[in-house]
Amino acid sequence: MLQRIDHVGIACRSLEAAIEKYTSVFGLSVTSLEVNEEQGVKEAMLSLQPGQAEGPAGPFGSYVQLLEPLSEDTPVGKFLARRGEGIHHIGYAVANVTDALAAIEAAGLVRLIDARPRHGSLGASIAFLHPADLGGVLTELVQPSAGSPGLPGSPGGPVAGAASD
Amino acid sequence: MLQRIDHVGIACRSLEAAIEKYTSVFGLSVTSLEVNEEQGVKEAMLSLQPGQAEGPAGPFGSYVQLLEPLSEDTPVGKFLARRGEGIHHIGYAVANVTDALAAIEAAGLVRLIDARPRHGSLGASIAFLHPADLGGVLTELVQPSAGSPGLPGSPGGPVAGAASD
Repeated sequence: MLQRIDHVGIACRSLEAAIEKYTSVFGLSVTSLEVNEEQGVKEAMLSLQPGQAEGPAGPFGSYVQLLEPLSEDTPVGKFLARRGEGIHHIGYAVANVTDALAAIEAAGLVRLIDARPRHGSLGASIAFLHPADLGGVLTELVQPSAGSPGLPGSPGGPVAGAASD
Repeated sequence: MLQRIDHVGIACRSLEAAIEKYTSVFGLSVTSLEVNEEQGVKEAMLSLQPGQAEGPAGPFGSYVQLLEPLSEDTPVGKFLARRGEGIHHIGYAVANVTDALAAIEAAGLVRLIDARPRHGSLGASIAFLHPADLGGVLTELVQPSAGSPGLPGSPGGPVAGAASD
């Protein structure tokens, strides 16, 4: 069901400072900047693989997702108040998020936060699973957009469709 | 420098229970079980991509790494006491961990926990970077073993060399 790690979601107090750190230390590039009002975050997706000639990554890359809360009264804002900056969640790529939710619900071992998919970064369809049933790990399922950025030559091509869907 | 997310390291109280959860909920398979005395953990690497015909992952997969401390007086044991179960660290693949450490040290923005590479899971060479300089994120650099497991046809082939090095 889980194909690969799509992204690691990192809660930070200053998106600007976090972007500066990850780009200057690791040479990552910013693929997208978005405000997601529904999730209460201002966020950046930093791509790990484009241009990495030595990288064996597949047509869909993996990302560092930096998350700054829009206010204290948001999930990420509450996370920062409770735990401080750090890893907030992990996102796994799935082929079809609706099918994955149905299979997980049928198995009955993990509660769903989202019974149906909602919109995520880069036009993806996403759903969260409850951390209490997964050893404290907030877990996200990600079905990348058909126009999701990938390596040159992959479906969608670099950055094409990043703001669509 | 960072090619992809190699693994997410998850601290758990019972490795057996965590493996049961991840295999039954997500259908993951256990690639390796190891005891790492130096790091004070009993651990399992669960592979995300082999056999996933629909998966676009590259020749090297990504993993869920489940970590049970060997005692309370270990880094993961102290993490569990302080924060409870949850995500402990994130590991990124690099082409050469020695070169990556040299570049990061030269930039002078992030302190190294390991000045030189040490042995990690699946025969990899690894090094940790200090979370205090990376927004609370314990960050691991991973240079997979030349014999690291991969997709059929990739260097090393499936599971070949997993216990070597």
